Amino acid sequence: MTQTIFGIHPVTEALKSPSLLFEKIFLGTRTPHPSLQSILALAAEKNVPVTYVPEKALDHMVEGGLHQNVVAIVKGTPYVDIQDLLSQWKNGGTKAIFLILDGIQDPQNLGALVRTALGCGVHGMIIPKDRAVGVTPAVVKTSAGATAHLPIARVVNIANTVDALKKDGLWVYGASGEASELIYDLDLNIDLAIVIGAEGKGIRPLVKKKCDRLFSIPMKGPVSSFNASVSAGMILYEVMRQRSAAGGWK
Amino acid sequence: MTQTIFGIHPVTEALKSPSLLFEKIFLGTRTPHPSLQSILALAAEKNVPVTYVPEKALDHMVEGGLHQNVVAIVKGTPYVDIQDLLSQWKNGGTKAIFLILDGIQDPQNLGALVRTALGCGVHGMIIPKDRAVGVTPAVVKTSAGATAHLPIARVVNIANTVDALKKDGLWVYGASGEASELIYDLDLNIDLAIVIGAEGKGIRPLVKKKCDRLFSIPMKGPVSSFNASVSAGMILYEVMRQRSAAGGWK
Repeated sequence: MTQTIFGIHPVTEALKSPSLLFEKIFLGTRTPHPSLQSILALAAEKNVPVTYVPEKALDHMVEGGLHQNVVAIVKGTPYVDIQDLLSQWKNGGTKAIFLILDGIQDPQNLGALVRTALGCGVHGMIIPKDRAVGVTPAVVKTSAGATAHLPIARVVNIANTVDALKKDGLWVYGASGEASELIYDLDLNIDLAIVIGAEGKGIRPLVKKKCDRLFSIPMKGPVSSFNASVSAGMILYEVMRQRSAAGGWK
Repeated sequence: MTQTIFGIHPVTEALKSPSLLFEKIFLGTRTPHPSLQSILALAAEKNVPVTYVPEKALDHMVEGGLHQNVVAIVKGTPYVDIQDLLSQWKNGGTKAIFLILDGIQDPQNLGALVRTALGCGVHGMIIPKDRAVGVTPAVVKTSAGATAHLPIARVVNIANTVDALKKDGLWVYGASGEASELIYDLDLNIDLAIVIGAEGKGIRPLVKKKCDRLFSIPMKGPVSSFNASVSAGMILYEVMRQRSAAGGWK
């Protein structure tokens, strides 16, 4: 199994990730501009073969995406096993912060969420296998390369996973517009997984019931919801703020 | 002068705004589904004429946008005068919070920023006339109708505007990745305008120099920046949190 990564920034970021195995890089031009040249240098360092192909061939590989003359084929899936996801935290010695996405369908939203999560020091992300977007080339692109660095696990059943995480000692808190408890009234300096629901629909009832606690983000005016990545940014910011205040976020 | 608003949600939100004058609504079907029917009801209430046209005519009006069979033509510009923007705060009796965008060029980003700002209770937004995207139909659409509710002023010179705001008693703080001061170490319970720079480039040097203070958002891992609307969400969340803690945010 392979995955396709394209665009100057995503491919550069992916080449810097120690965990990705490159099969091949395709370039659409023999007179590469400086950014492509730095990709050539990184590829040489990692012994990744580079092939020149007509631009049209690249267009075909990325199905309408903006490839900027570079497409990489990477071995394996973009996903990790959930046990590997957890072991990174267990070996790291810091308070856990995981993000569970219950059914995000828009690739742009998922890409933005991965970028935000990585920047906020999230240990890993959990997404469902069905009725949700996976780590597609469009998601890799929107994440600005962040998918190459953030461990992402795909599970069959989010509700069961929430149960398993709770048994593993994690607290699972869900973001829900109707919850009366506000995010800034919670103690977030604990081993934590945050659940965020699908665009417009929120967390599914069964998953919601499994959460240890539900909370909302205060909102003003005639807005019915924040964008999913904006919500995640606010929640993860509050986690960073509290942990920093407690001296535990470095 | 007129502006074009399209899509079910944006047109519905716009019809609820008391400040917008509708010239006409175009529908692409005579058998409207429930959401379009509620638009018809709102239009009847406001005496807005409704015309049925072929779908292709709507496609042409929105230049490739997703119109969902409804396009509205609204009188006037989507902008307010900066003095009107300020008077809303002056008459309101709450601590000011304005958002100044120094050169956002992507319509999706501007739309997301307007939606986030409105949900965080921002009094108004200030954008530059040149080298930045204005409130185009695509921005109205991405904002999920929030442009109909948030006062937005367009100015010729952001640096001069910062000076004028400071004379008016506002503090102007700029978000800058390089600043050593962190957002959560600042007192934000003051009359405040926040400056956010362009994607990738940040705030321009002259505008940066005019700011009373620069601050950064803490960030982890191999991420070079947060998306503009995610950054704005984090900053405005912190403003809400501090004002709520001080009892001044309702």
